[in-house]
Amino acid sequence: MNEPSFPPLLTGHAVDAGEDPFERACAGARDAEFGAGDLVWSRALDRTAMALVLEPDVDRQRSREMIFVAMVACADAVGANIPPEIGFTWMWPTTLRANGARVGEVRYAEARTDAEDGAPDWIVVGLEITLFDATPREVEPGETPDRTTFFDEGAGDIEADELISSIARHWTTWIHRWDSDGFAPVHEAWLFRADGHKKTINLKTAEGPAEGVFLGVDEAGNLLLKEEGGAVRALSLSRELGLADDRQGA
Amino acid sequence: MNEPSFPPLLTGHAVDAGEDPFERACAGARDAEFGAGDLVWSRALDRTAMALVLEPDVDRQRSREMIFVAMVACADAVGANIPPEIGFTWMWPTTLRANGARVGEVRYAEARTDAEDGAPDWIVVGLEITLFDATPREVEPGETPDRTTFFDEGAGDIEADELISSIARHWTTWIHRWDSDGFAPVHEAWLFRADGHKKTINLKTAEGPAEGVFLGVDEAGNLLLKEEGGAVRALSLSRELGLADDRQGA
Repeated sequence: MNEPSFPPLLTGHAVDAGEDPFERACAGARDAEFGAGDLVWSRALDRTAMALVLEPDVDRQRSREMIFVAMVACADAVGANIPPEIGFTWMWPTTLRANGARVGEVRYAEARTDAEDGAPDWIVVGLEITLFDATPREVEPGETPDRTTFFDEGAGDIEADELISSIARHWTTWIHRWDSDGFAPVHEAWLFRADGHKKTINLKTAEGPAEGVFLGVDEAGNLLLKEEGGAVRALSLSRELGLADDRQGA
Repeated sequence: MNEPSFPPLLTGHAVDAGEDPFERACAGARDAEFGAGDLVWSRALDRTAMALVLEPDVDRQRSREMIFVAMVACADAVGANIPPEIGFTWMWPTTLRANGARVGEVRYAEARTDAEDGAPDWIVVGLEITLFDATPREVEPGETPDRTTFFDEGAGDIEADELISSIARHWTTWIHRWDSDGFAPVHEAWLFRADGHKKTINLKTAEGPAEGVFLGVDEAGNLLLKEEGGAVRALSLSRELGLADDRQGA
């Protein structure tokens, strides 16, 4: 595997295929070994796995907008590297999909401690996309229609290092855009690839089953669902991801 | 002094007024305590002093373009924070000027070791601007016309923390632009505020006195001077700053 290249503000740290870059990034951030701009990436060939440490100067709720920032950045990088006929979409909150089946996910962790300004000391956003099945499957293709790989969808040419380099660049672009222009452009780009937008969806959530018209997400990343009868319900992102609620929230 | 705020990819590290943030950043980068995106800033009130660690994935010559990136970013931040009637310009290679007199400087250091890809392991770019004279001067104003402060030029209102925050944001913007679009837009913005551009200038340089029409800088940051007779001479940036010459250079 070639070394990925990173933009000037990022510091790359490689981990072997057996190690989880997200866990490594969280441990490094907790120990103050890592700070903003440290990006841990896996040398695994069968998947793109990477995790970025950030220190946004905003509160916990707004920090979680970085989940959506990562997703739109990932989509831009994927769009530049895989055939356009492969539909790359997602389902709230963190599932990445290729042609409708699960191909990866976003992960998120945040410091329990706050910096002086009320912002979490650090957050870690992880991205993982399955490129191909490293272990032979005991099932026939098509038997697990809810999960797929880029290879299975016809994007077998992509190299993990190229995708990592591309994601890193698009990620800094989108972080920068978020910092300059706020959540609105991120939200717009995110809705563009969100499965079920403006349609009636059914979800199993941490709060139980939910059904309604998927309107969008609010600034805390909660899913806005217009239920039968017209009331708008906000499904909690923090509850869905098992994060501690905001001080000012709830 | 209020805490400056930084964009998500930067990690701020404060030093007391007595400590030099540039030296601190270099020591931290050397010891691998700091990496890309670590920004050391001074709590001094009389000056804005800060230094950013970067790890560009380009060779030494191109890495030095970051000197010019810092200057144009600084100008954008200064322009947003001081009265427009104060002329903020610079003289190659690293002198910052207010209304024609020296008000600050850019500093630059680079690792002696290369990363595997031939890029320096790290670089540090420092910025220093004098806001006011912290110690009473023994000379009358006007007696040192070659040096000034923002206060002396009528920009006494600006707070160091605001300027630091603003520079940090414009800096990441310009680094990002450089990463996306290369040196050309940086060069263009830099020439716009370069004293003596397209005019005949006299310079005392490390290579001795030089005279000619100041045409621009090349991709290695060398000053291009059209001498009498028409020959174009490149004044070496690396020699001017006392940096080791490139492997591929000289």
